[in-house]
Amino acid sequence: MKKTAILLFVILIGIQGFSQKKNFTVSDAVMGQWRQFAPDKPDGITTYTGTDDFTYVENYSTIYRLSVSGKDKTILASLSEINEALGKVFLEKISYIPYWDYSWKSPDLLVFTINSNYIVYNIKEKVVEYAAKLPKDAENIMPHTETGYVAFTEKNNLFFMGNNYEIIQITNEENEGIVCGSDYVHRQEFGIDKGIFWSPKGNLLAFYRKDETMVSDYPLVNINTEIATLKNEKYPMIGQKSEEVTLGIYNVETKKTVYMEVTDFTKERYLTSITWDLSEKYIYIGVLNSEQNYLKLNKYDASTGKIVKTLFEEINEKYVEPEHPLYFVDSDEFLYYSEKDGYDHLYLYNTEGVQIKQVTKGKWVVKSIVGLDQNHKNVFITATKDSPLETNLYKVNIKKGTITRLTPEKGTHSITLNHNGTYFFDTYSNTETPSISGIYDASSKQIKEVMKSKNKLEGYAMGEMKIGTIKAADNKTDLYYRLILPTGFDKSKKYPVIVYVYGGPHAQMTTDSWLGGASLWQQYMAQQGYIMFTLDNRGSAFRGFEFESVIHRNCGQNEVADQMKGVEFLKSLSYVDADKIGVHGWSYGGFMTTSLMTMHPETFKVGVAGGPVIDWKYYEVMYGERYMDTPEENPEGFENASLLNKADKLKGRLLMIHGYIDPVVVPQNSLDFIKACIKADTDLDYFIYPNSEHNMSGTTRVHLKKKVSRYFDDYLK
Amino acid sequence: MKKTAILLFVILIGIQGFSQKKNFTVSDAVMGQWRQFAPDKPDGITTYTGTDDFTYVENYSTIYRLSVSGKDKTILASLSEINEALGKVFLEKISYIPYWDYSWKSPDLLVFTINSNYIVYNIKEKVVEYAAKLPKDAENIMPHTETGYVAFTEKNNLFFMGNNYEIIQITNEENEGIVCGSDYVHRQEFGIDKGIFWSPKGNLLAFYRKDETMVSDYPLVNINTEIATLKNEKYPMIGQKSEEVTLGIYNVETKKTVYMEVTDFTKERYLTSITWDLSEKYIYIGVLNSEQNYLKLNKYDASTGKIVKTLFEEINEKYVEPEHPLYFVDSDEFLYYSEKDGYDHLYLYNTEGVQIKQVTKGKWVVKSIVGLDQNHKNVFITATKDSPLETNLYKVNIKKGTITRLTPEKGTHSITLNHNGTYFFDTYSNTETPSISGIYDASSKQIKEVMKSKNKLEGYAMGEMKIGTIKAADNKTDLYYRLILPTGFDKSKKYPVIVYVYGGPHAQMTTDSWLGGASLWQQYMAQQGYIMFTLDNRGSAFRGFEFESVIHRNCGQNEVADQMKGVEFLKSLSYVDADKIGVHGWSYGGFMTTSLMTMHPETFKVGVAGGPVIDWKYYEVMYGERYMDTPEENPEGFENASLLNKADKLKGRLLMIHGYIDPVVVPQNSLDFIKACIKADTDLDYFIYPNSEHNMSGTTRVHLKKKVSRYFDDYLK
Repeated sequence: MKKTAILLFVILIGIQGFSQKKNFTVSDAVMGQWRQFAPDKPDGITTYTGTDDFTYVENYSTIYRLSVSGKDKTILASLSEINEALGKVFLEKISYIPYWDYSWKSPDLLVFTINSNYIVYNIKEKVVEYAAKLPKDAENIMPHTETGYVAFTEKNNLFFMGNNYEIIQITNEENEGIVCGSDYVHRQEFGIDKGIFWSPKGNLLAFYRKDETMVSDYPLVNINTEIATLKNEKYPMIGQKSEEVTLGIYNVETKKTVYMEVTDFTKERYLTSITWDLSEKYIYIGVLNSEQNYLKLNKYDASTGKIVKTLFEEINEKYVEPEHPLYFVDSDEFLYYSEKDGYDHLYLYNTEGVQIKQVTKGKWVVKSIVGLDQNHKNVFITATKDSPLETNLYKVNIKKGTITRLTPEKGTHSITLNHNGTYFFDTYSNTETPSISGIYDASSKQIKEVMKSKNKLEGYAMGEMKIGTIKAADNKTDLYYRLILPTGFDKSKKYPVIVYVYGGPHAQMTTDSWLGGASLWQQYMAQQGYIMFTLDNRGSAFRGFEFESVIHRNCGQNEVADQMKGVEFLKSLSYVDADKIGVHGWSYGGFMTTSLMTMHPETFKVGVAGGPVIDWKYYEVMYGERYMDTPEENPEGFENASLLNKADKLKGRLLMIHGYIDPVVVPQNSLDFIKACIKADTDLDYFIYPNSEHNMSGTTRVHLKKKVSRYFDDYLK
Repeated sequence: MKKTAILLFVILIGIQGFSQKKNFTVSDAVMGQWRQFAPDKPDGITTYTGTDDFTYVENYSTIYRLSVSGKDKTILASLSEINEALGKVFLEKISYIPYWDYSWKSPDLLVFTINSNYIVYNIKEKVVEYAAKLPKDAENIMPHTETGYVAFTEKNNLFFMGNNYEIIQITNEENEGIVCGSDYVHRQEFGIDKGIFWSPKGNLLAFYRKDETMVSDYPLVNINTEIATLKNEKYPMIGQKSEEVTLGIYNVETKKTVYMEVTDFTKERYLTSITWDLSEKYIYIGVLNSEQNYLKLNKYDASTGKIVKTLFEEINEKYVEPEHPLYFVDSDEFLYYSEKDGYDHLYLYNTEGVQIKQVTKGKWVVKSIVGLDQNHKNVFITATKDSPLETNLYKVNIKKGTITRLTPEKGTHSITLNHNGTYFFDTYSNTETPSISGIYDASSKQIKEVMKSKNKLEGYAMGEMKIGTIKAADNKTDLYYRLILPTGFDKSKKYPVIVYVYGGPHAQMTTDSWLGGASLWQQYMAQQGYIMFTLDNRGSAFRGFEFESVIHRNCGQNEVADQMKGVEFLKSLSYVDADKIGVHGWSYGGFMTTSLMTMHPETFKVGVAGGPVIDWKYYEVMYGERYMDTPEENPEGFENASLLNKADKLKGRLLMIHGYIDPVVVPQNSLDFIKACIKADTDLDYFIYPNSEHNMSGTTRVHLKKKVSRYFDDYLK
C-alpha cells in the first residue's frame, strides 16, 4: 500500500517531523467524518431525463448539467432563482435544494418535494409550474413524476392528490393499529423501504396495509414532556403474535381499492418484492411463509385481486430472503435475484415463470442492478466479482452471460448510468483514494475526471492500516481483517488492542474504501495508542449464503469462534499486548461484544457493548425468526445464544449502553442482563441515552464516543 | 468514648494484634447488619391487655409473658400449638408468629392477621376461637380487636366483615382512579400510614377516599413480563393537578356512609390528623390548605358530616406540617403536637378548641407520646431534651409541666409502656452499647435487665468513630458530625474521605446509637482505608423549625453551605487528603451529592448520587410544594436548586444510580440530568436497577454497595 511507504518515511525522518502531525479530538472524528474531513464528491448525481447527460447539485444550492463529453458544465437552476419563483406564488422559501430527492419530469421541469410541498419548477421560464401543498404531517410522500400525482400518508391512512389539488382519502382505518402506505412494514426487512408503489403509468397505486392490532406494545418512555409520557412501540417479539400484511391497489380512475387475494401460508406471511407488470394489469408479490423458508413468486390480477399464477417457488431448509423487486428487461422478461446457487445472482425469467437462464454465476455476489443499455441486451451491475472488499461495475450480456468490468480502478464504486446506458458517472474511493468522480463511456473509457478530493486528513497523524486475511475457525474460509496501528508505532513496544466487531448478517466492516470502512473514531483511538482490529467473521455479508447462514439457529457460536481466530492472530503479533485486549460493538456487535466477554473472560479485559441483543427471545419476529426460528423450535440454539445465563462468567469490565427509546433492540435486553448480573453477583457498567433510539447521532454521538474512549482509557490502557 | 481507648490499646500492642481483627465483605456488611451482626433484642414487645405485664416473641415462634417484677417469664403460646389449633379448623399452617402485628383481646385471646386470615386464638384452651378468611388480595387489613370486626380493601374499594363472616362492600368505585381505604393518601406525607380509622368502640369506620383520576400517570416499565409492560404510577408533579381527598364514615349498624363536608380551601387540600372523639359522635380533621401554610383543626359530626367547629387555626408563612393525630387525655381534653413555638411540643386543648396550656417547652423536640399513667396526670414522651443525638423517655406532668427523665442511660431508647402506665420496657443502644433491654418502674428504677446483646462485631476491625460538632455556615448553629477513621489508622498518613450525606428534612444521620447511626457498609469502607464523614446540616430533623425550614423555597443552598463547612473541618485535619474527597448520598442525599459535585467541582473528586432529585419540578406536590412552593411562585428558588443548569459545571467523576421503577423520585430526574450532561458535554456515569423502586434491598443492595465501593476504589483511592 502506498500509505505504508509514506508512513515509514515519516518515521525515518524522525520525531521532529512526526510531531508536526496533528491529532484530532473525538468531536473532530465523529462530526468531522461527515463535515470537514469528508472527501469532496458531487451530490445528487442523476440522469437528466430526455438527454444523455447527468445533473448534480453543489453546495445544496446549484444544479449543474454535465455533458457526457465532460466538456460542458452548465447551471440549470439555483436556489435563489427557485426561491424567487416560489415567492411569486406565495410559497415559503427553501433553504437548500434537496439533492437526495429531486428528479426531472422533462429537461425543463424539475420536480422535488420539500416542507410538505410538491413542486414542479420550470428551469427555462424560471417559474413554478405546479405546486401542491400537502398537509403538514404528511409522510411517505410519493409522487408519480410523469402524471404529477402524489400519494402520501397522514397518521395511519393513505391519501391521493391528483392534478386538481383535490385530496382523496384512500383508506379509512379508524384503528391506528392498522397502517396503510407506511414504509415501516415487516419492520423494513426484505429490502422494504417504501409502502406505496405507483404503477408505471400512474393509473394505479399499490400499497401495503399492515394490521398490527394484535401485536404487543413495547412501552418506551419519552422524558421530554413535563411529566414523562408513554410511547408505545408495536413490537412483534419472537414467538409472539406478529402483524398481518396485505396489498391494496387503488384505481385513480374508479377510486376503488382492491386487495390482492393472497392465500398462501398463514396470515403472518411476508409480502415482498412488490413489482408492477409493465402493462399495469398485473402485480407480482414474493409471498414468503412465516417460517421464511418457502417463497412463492405470485402474479396477481391488479383489477380483481385474483391470483393469476405462481411463477416459481424457492425453498431452502435454512431460509429464503427475497430483498429485491423484479427488474423488467422487456414486457415479458425480468431479472430476479436469488441466492439459490449459494450466491446472490441474477436469473432471467419470463412472466410465465419459466427460468430462461442464470445470467450471472460464480463465487461472488451481485450487489445491485444499475441499469440496462439502450437495446436491453446488457445489464449493468455492481458486484464483488474481483474481490469481496470491492464493489465494481460490470456489464453483463443477458443472453450470453459474458461479463466485463467497467471500473478500472480498484475500490468501492458508486454508479449512475445515463438515460441511454451509454455513459456512466462513477464516484469511488479505495484505501489510498479519498474520492474520485468521473464520467466514463460504456466501454469503461474515462471521458473526464469531474472531481478529485484532496486528502483532508493530510497533516493529521493517521495510524497505518493493514487489510489482510486469516483463516476462519473452520480452518478453510478466508476472513478479511483490518488492523490499524497506533500513530507513532514502534514495533518494539507492546500496545493494547480493541477489537471492533459487528459480526452479524447484512454488513461488512472492512472494505477497500477510504479509511478501509473504519470510522474516523478508530483513527482517533490509534492516536491514543490503541491497535484497532476488525474481522468480518462468517455470518457477515457479501460472501455467499453458506458463509452468512452459518449463524442459522446458532447465533453467537461460529462468529465468536472466528473472532477468537482473530485474537489468536493478534496474539501472534509481537507488538500486541495480549493482556490488554478490549472489544467494542453495537447492536449485533453489542451481542458479539457481550458474548466474547462472557464466553472468553480470560481473553477480554474490557468491553463496551451498545444496543445489544442479550437474548434472541427479546428480538423481533422478522429478522429474529429468520436466523433463530422460535424458542419452541430451537430451544438449544436460544439457550446457547442467551447471554442471561452467561452473566455469571463476566470477569472483565463491561460497559453496556442503550438508547432509552430503542425500538429496534428494545431496552429489555440490556436491563435483563443487569438483572442477571445482580443475580450472579457480577459487575457491569451501564449507560443510557435518554433521547436515543438504536443509534446516537450528532452531539449525543460525540458524547457516546467520548464515553467509550474514556472507558478504554480507564481500564485498558 | 470507651471504644477509643480500646482501639488505641490495640494499636499499641502492634500490628500482630491488629492482624487478628477480621474485615468483613460488602455482603457481610449489607446483609449482616440485619442478620449475624444485628444486636439481640426482644421482638414485638407489647402490653399484655388486662394485666400489668408485657409479652414478647422469641425466634418468631414463642410468645412469652414477662411479669413487671421481672421474675416470671412464662410461655403463653407457641407456633406449634397455634398450628395444631389451626389444623383442627382446617386453616393453613403458619411458618412464624407475626410479632409486628399481634395483640391481646383479653389475657386469653391472642389476635393476629396472617395470610389474609384474621385469627383469634385462645391460649388457654389452645383452640382457634374465631377465624375469618379474607380474600387473597385483601390489603390494608384493619381489625377492631374488641368487636372482632375487620375492614380491608380489595383493589380500590373498601370492605367490611362483621362477626357473621359476611363481607359487605362499603364503596363501589368503578373507576380505579378513585381509591378508598388505602394507606397511600397524600403520598404518605403528614405521618399518614393508614387509610382506615375505627371509632373507639368499633361502631363507625372512617376512611380516606382519594380521587386521583385527574392526576397524570408516570409511565414506569416492568421488564419481568415476556414483553415489557407498562406500570403507570399516579404522580402529581409539582405545579400539576393533584389528587382530591375526602373522608367517609361508614356506620356498621345502618350500613350507610356519610362523607365529611369539608369546604375549606380548594379541593387539593390535605386531610390530616384524623382522630375520633372518644364519644364516637365527632371526628377531628386537620384541614391544611394546598399551599400548606394554613391549618384548620376542625370537628365534624360523624353522623351528618357537618362541621361542628373549627377548634383552632395555625398559620405559618413557611409551612405548617401536621403529622400526628390528637391524643386524648380524657373525654374532652387532648394533647396536640405543634411546632408553633419553633419546636415540636405538646399543647393541651379542650374539645371546644381552647388551648389550656403548653405542656412541654424548650429548645428540643417531642418525638412521640408513649402513653399516660393510670389517672392521666402524667404523659410519657420520648424527646431530645438532653441531647439532639439521644432519644430518652420523660414523664411530664400535664398540668404542672414538670418533666422527669426516666431512662438513666444515654442513647436511643425504644419504649413500651404497660397497661397501667406503671412500668415500661426499654430497649436502647448507644455508641458503646449494641442493645440492652430491661423493665423499669415509672420512677426509672430498673427492675430487671431482660436482655443484653454481646457485641457481634467483636473480632472485626472497626474504624474509630468520633461524634462532635462544628458551626454551620451561619457561624452560630451547632451541627453534629460523625467521623469514622480507617481501621489501622495512622495519623501521620493521609487518607481519602467520603462524605456520606442525606441533608434533607425528616431525617437525622448521626445519633447516639449503636454504630452512631451509620450503616455497617461505612465500617466496611473504613476497613478499605477511607475516612467516612457525615454531617447533619441545617435542614435535617429534630432540631426545631428554624433549623429544618432553612431549606424553604431554597433547597440545596444552605445545606450545601453547611456541608462545605464540614469539608473545611475535614481539610483542617492533618490526616485528610484534601485532594481525595468524595461524596455519596441517596434521594435527598442524591440531590445533595449532585449539588456538591456541580457547585463545588474543585472540592469533590468523586461522587455517587442515588435516586436523586435533579429538579424539584419533577418531584411530587405534597413534599415538594411544602418546601419549594410552585415554580410559578418561586422561579428563582427552582432555578437555584435545579441541577440541570449545573451539568456544565461537573468536573469530577459522578456515578448516578436510579431504580428503573422508582415511583418516589421518578427516573425522569436522572435521565434529564444525562440529557443536560450530553448538552453540556460533561461526563457522567450511570446505573439502573431494573427491578428496584426508590431503594434497593437484599442481594440487589449488596450489588449496589459493591458498585459504589468499587467506584470510589477506581477513582478516589
